[in-house]
Amino acid sequence: MPLLAEARRQFETSKPFLGHKIGMSLHLEPKTAVLLETLTAGGAEIVATGNHGSTQDDVVAYLRSCGMTIFGGRADSLDDHKRNLASVLAHEPDVLLDNGADLAFGVSESRATQVIGGTEETTSGALRLRGELMGKVPFPIIVINDSILKSIGENRHAVGQSVVESFMRITNLMIPGRRFVVVGYGWCGRGVAQYLRALGGKVAVVETDELVAFEAALDGYRVDTIEGLAGWGEVFITATGHPGIMGSETFPLLNDGAVLANCGHFPWEIDVEALRSMASKIETIDNAIERVEFADGRHIILIAEGRMMNLAGREPKGNSLESMDIGFLLQALSLEQIALNAAALLDGAQPVPDEINRKIARRMLETMGASK
Amino acid sequence: MPLLAEARRQFETSKPFLGHKIGMSLHLEPKTAVLLETLTAGGAEIVATGNHGSTQDDVVAYLRSCGMTIFGGRADSLDDHKRNLASVLAHEPDVLLDNGADLAFGVSESRATQVIGGTEETTSGALRLRGELMGKVPFPIIVINDSILKSIGENRHAVGQSVVESFMRITNLMIPGRRFVVVGYGWCGRGVAQYLRALGGKVAVVETDELVAFEAALDGYRVDTIEGLAGWGEVFITATGHPGIMGSETFPLLNDGAVLANCGHFPWEIDVEALRSMASKIETIDNAIERVEFADGRHIILIAEGRMMNLAGREPKGNSLESMDIGFLLQALSLEQIALNAAALLDGAQPVPDEINRKIARRMLETMGASK
Amino acid sequence: MPLLAEARRQFETSKPFLGHKIGMSLHLEPKTAVLLETLTAGGAEIVATGNHGSTQDDVVAYLRSCGMTIFGGRADSLDDHKRNLASVLAHEPDVLLDNGADLAFGVSESRATQVIGGTEETTSGALRLRGELMGKVPFPIIVINDSILKSIGENRHAVGQSVVESFMRITNLMIPGRRFVVVGYGWCGRGVAQYLRALGGKVAVVETDELVAFEAALDGYRVDTIEGLAGWGEVFITATGHPGIMGSETFPLLNDGAVLANCGHFPWEIDVEALRSMASKIETIDNAIERVEFADGRHIILIAEGRMMNLAGREPKGNSLESMDIGFLLQALSLEQIALNAAALLDGAQPVPDEINRKIARRMLETMGASK
Amino acid sequence: MPLLAEARRQFETSKPFLGHKIGMSLHLEPKTAVLLETLTAGGAEIVATGNHGSTQDDVVAYLRSCGMTIFGGRADSLDDHKRNLASVLAHEPDVLLDNGADLAFGVSESRATQVIGGTEETTSGALRLRGELMGKVPFPIIVINDSILKSIGENRHAVGQSVVESFMRITNLMIPGRRFVVVGYGWCGRGVAQYLRALGGKVAVVETDELVAFEAALDGYRVDTIEGLAGWGEVFITATGHPGIMGSETFPLLNDGAVLANCGHFPWEIDVEALRSMASKIETIDNAIERVEFADGRHIILIAEGRMMNLAGREPKGNSLESMDIGFLLQALSLEQIALNAAALLDGAQPVPDEINRKIARRMLETMGASK
Repeated sequence: MPLLAEARRQFETSKPFLGHKIGMSLHLEPKTAVLLETLTAGGAEIVATGNHGSTQDDVVAYLRSCGMTIFGGRADSLDDHKRNLASVLAHEPDVLLDNGADLAFGVSESRATQVIGGTEETTSGALRLRGELMGKVPFPIIVINDSILKSIGENRHAVGQSVVESFMRITNLMIPGRRFVVVGYGWCGRGVAQYLRALGGKVAVVETDELVAFEAALDGYRVDTIEGLAGWGEVFITATGHPGIMGSETFPLLNDGAVLANCGHFPWEIDVEALRSMASKIETIDNAIERVEFADGRHIILIAEGRMMNLAGREPKGNSLESMDIGFLLQALSLEQIALNAAALLDGAQPVPDEINRKIARRMLETMGASK
Repeated sequence: MPLLAEARRQFETSKPFLGHKIGMSLHLEPKTAVLLETLTAGGAEIVATGNHGSTQDDVVAYLRSCGMTIFGGRADSLDDHKRNLASVLAHEPDVLLDNGADLAFGVSESRATQVIGGTEETTSGALRLRGELMGKVPFPIIVINDSILKSIGENRHAVGQSVVESFMRITNLMIPGRRFVVVGYGWCGRGVAQYLRALGGKVAVVETDELVAFEAALDGYRVDTIEGLAGWGEVFITATGHPGIMGSETFPLLNDGAVLANCGHFPWEIDVEALRSMASKIETIDNAIERVEFADGRHIILIAEGRMMNLAGREPKGNSLESMDIGFLLQALSLEQIALNAAALLDGAQPVPDEINRKIARRMLETMGASK
Repeated sequence: MPLLAEARRQFETSKPFLGHKIGMSLHLEPKTAVLLETLTAGGAEIVATGNHGSTQDDVVAYLRSCGMTIFGGRADSLDDHKRNLASVLAHEPDVLLDNGADLAFGVSESRATQVIGGTEETTSGALRLRGELMGKVPFPIIVINDSILKSIGENRHAVGQSVVESFMRITNLMIPGRRFVVVGYGWCGRGVAQYLRALGGKVAVVETDELVAFEAALDGYRVDTIEGLAGWGEVFITATGHPGIMGSETFPLLNDGAVLANCGHFPWEIDVEALRSMASKIETIDNAIERVEFADGRHIILIAEGRMMNLAGREPKGNSLESMDIGFLLQALSLEQIALNAAALLDGAQPVPDEINRKIARRMLETMGASK
Repeated sequence: MPLLAEARRQFETSKPFLGHKIGMSLHLEPKTAVLLETLTAGGAEIVATGNHGSTQDDVVAYLRSCGMTIFGGRADSLDDHKRNLASVLAHEPDVLLDNGADLAFGVSESRATQVIGGTEETTSGALRLRGELMGKVPFPIIVINDSILKSIGENRHAVGQSVVESFMRITNLMIPGRRFVVVGYGWCGRGVAQYLRALGGKVAVVETDELVAFEAALDGYRVDTIEGLAGWGEVFITATGHPGIMGSETFPLLNDGAVLANCGHFPWEIDVEALRSMASKIETIDNAIERVEFADGRHIILIAEGRMMNLAGREPKGNSLESMDIGFLLQALSLEQIALNAAALLDGAQPVPDEINRKIARRMLETMGASK
């Protein structure tokens, strides 16, 4: 991750976080450790907890050995997790790196006054800040996931490619001539549709917003409802963000052997509970493949229990190194902006400052050798 | 144009324009006559003048024979044209179909009070309404060109394809393996780049906005400055909207035989005057091809004097019937909205109402047979 | 045509045709005049006649003014044409540039002995040489159209692109989202299918050879019979070489408004006679568009009376300059081979010598700047 | 593998191999076990040995439990392997399923007379049969790998996709905007180039045959030598079949961080020995990634030690299930043809009978639902 490494070298000299304590709630896995070390190199004191369920204990041990204060572990219950969040806040951080607005919510409850600002990684956290927490967070929160660099670099291209990669890796099925239905034509959906078609797949799109559907139609896709495509498609990939997009009304319409997968953030787009309840027999074929048989003799292949398929399987890679480099640099530079300049920003959720987006775009163009 | 024909049938019954006089400034050519007849079928009284220079006298004669009041003709001077605009307004229309905000400007000067609202076709008219005329137009003006349907349907796809078509038709050169530089990666530029590459061209992009340039780089294009690409490109197509993008500093850098063309709205992106002043010899090869020779022995091919290449040549077609159908229907339904409902709208320039965009998108999806 | 110009410069020095008289049957139009001048520059004496129906009188006049012996004119009857062929042979040429094997047939009849060899432009001429004339032509004939350079450069890419260009130019319909059926997946058909899909069209393929059909399916196309696709397609383009591929059984199955066009060499793939005989009304819309109405209310649009669509319309361009440059250079170098080296070749129809193909490929790679 | 399953059901009834003993040399892994069971279902007696180095002992145990005679195991030395081949022949099989012509060679040495014919899986075996063994094999051998179904279905599409999949899986690098050099534009190379470009990569091609290079250029690729592209490319993928295509002259020219990978059958296209001998430091990053550092500070990433990248990494899948289904069915039906009809065939190496190719193509079109 050359861009983050470069930021680290600059932070080692400029020390933007000197005297700041950053409270964090984030995935504690090897890759994110690099971000924390970058912030530490800039003079930050770190107090952090993981997201519930994804914490890796060896990473926790390593970070502690680097002098960071870390709460929690892999085996934590949901109650443990809540206590960890409280423990982070009890250390009175003045800058937050938040995830799902959990820390911002804690601060709004405790009415702690030392916080000068922070960042929020997710869109769902941003929704919370602009919903129930509107007006209750008296400091700026920069929302990372709103950056156009994430939309283009990660949601469209990186997810599009990792979905294609994971489909081939998990199923070992060929793409040319296979009939795919991409449900949802947002940033992720159009990346997935584009790359599947580029590899020779026949791709249809389901999209309920007629303006977006019109765009899909001009992009050359067949556009129809799930019902209209249920008897045509061989593989269905959901990317809508909405729960239960494929549910008990859809399953009876599908072809024998249909493959169901999801690449949206939440594991709720395919109603897995309904699917299993309709099954006459369920068989786990591989760690990411479930064969669900119905009484009428048809069967359905469910990928990764409806969780993000590009993080599933035996050797998942997730998004490309480059898209993670962009995401972490957005965090590092946004936190630097908060540390140096919070008073000049408006309170509440706000987009990544334009100059940060532009700086990263320029560096990416250079690093990629775009002019070659 | 099936959508417009359908609107006409509805207008014949609903007569939304009954009692309204629509004052117009627009291209008077055979295709636009269909729009005027559609409005007349809805009960409108029409008083119109053409744009300067594009009026076709036989169309004028035909429209007069249909009972419309039309001013002007092909031979009009610029002064004549101004008088024609004044004549239209002198008829006291209460609804305007404007182009470049000429009629809105006239109304703001005369302080006429009978106007209840109107439409504006162009982006440049919208800029004027939001600039010098801000606050001076006490009625709603719906800006047609801002509609997402135009951006997608016309600027991206229709222009992209007509540029490809006109390049082949005018030059008779092959596209596969040829090196194209697309200057500007807006709606038009990305359509042109996409279709040239799809046909086997090698395509590089020039784009000064780094966020957009990053998108172009992830779309797989080489991204560089004009200077960086001058010695590489064989064909340069401008689509920036800015004057003099290719000028006297660029011409000396180009390869012998380089082809220069423009698909932006205004004929000013290539500095034709500077080009000709640098020439040792100029030869007109065909009605859309000019061979400009320099003293150093190199020559350059200029297409259509830097005017829109997709409207040039012996048999120009312009954009597809479908994109015109969409554009005219946006006009017809927006004018209907003004006629029926102007009082409920805010004053000044505003986007096409969402429900009109959505209605047209739905009808296009059906007409196209998108689900097939 | 830079390659042919280069050959001409070399011929001016090497004079390979000195002392040879080349008898020709070919299209006499401005472009082919360049080929004749190239041969003359190499020392050839030319005696030629046009193909029946395509001779341009001003070209004939120009060639005569250059000292060539030319028979025939635009108004010639078929009998005149036969007399012209006889007149060419009466001049006792020793080298032939043939088209459809007309001159070879004449020589086989007359048992003339001065001919040392020649070239044949067309595949149909090659079929004749390998059929009825097998064993009757006691000299080598190099078949130009068999060259892989023609298959790739002309049949696949140049025809593919000119079909796309002519479709847009003639119909003014948009390609994205439109449903095309390409009938025949040979060199031409796969070029047409590839480029239509690249421009956003939905493309299905009809192909009766199952091995080729399998290739089309893996290339991602829907593959079915004409009957299976008749109710789906909006545009049908034939490229099979076979007569009556779309005939009286197909027309009743087509959708209202279906467009029929052909890009195969012969104007017989769509059974135009049958189509017209089934019509209740026929209307000529434009010089390349015919609207055929049936008693059941449906209508069909026929392009260019079933002739090659890429040569139809008001401003046809045909294939790209580059593909013509390749074709003429194949002629020039093959004739040079005959003039210098006929005795070393086998008698009868044979492919273009490998070293000529390779030489032209190398020069094209350089001229194109393939390494840039 | 639905096609093979179908063949098995037919064989259970028709029993084409009754009374035949098939001697085999092939990979003994789980997938191939399915082929052996299919043949057994058709009445065959099986006597087999694995290829050297790839035998899986649990598969051997399983096959023996099914009543087949299997020689060898994972730990075999090369001498053991030769003895195994001899043991197979000692059982006097009358039909051969050969790999690299090892069994055919043994028969030609021993002058055994009971063999009526067989199949050969590989191209290198076919070369041997048409070279040193020409005239020495007095029975028909059907060469599976020559089938057009393998060229299209496996070499172009399946390899192209599995290379793309393995690149993403092994390196976790993004494809869009990355600069790839594909060395060799045969069936595999053009599949790899096509799919990398389709996913947004910038792709250049190295091809020494000028006719093929011309095709690559018209397909829109930059075409140059390895030396010309060494300073441009970020990733090099070899697919030529030739040893040492990338060697000691090339390595000094490469950019810092260049990635080297191979997808050709043999692990010799990248001269790994030379590469390592030039290194100042070698580091194994992952089971398929080696970081080779030079004294000048540059480093190179070597994938899978130059072996087929699509079979490398922690969770390799190899080619798609569909392409294996085709390959096994070609074996099964070709062996059936030998068993039923050997006397009617010519002696020596020969292509898969046309009717077998066509039958499989038809079944694939149906199974794929090509008409949907």
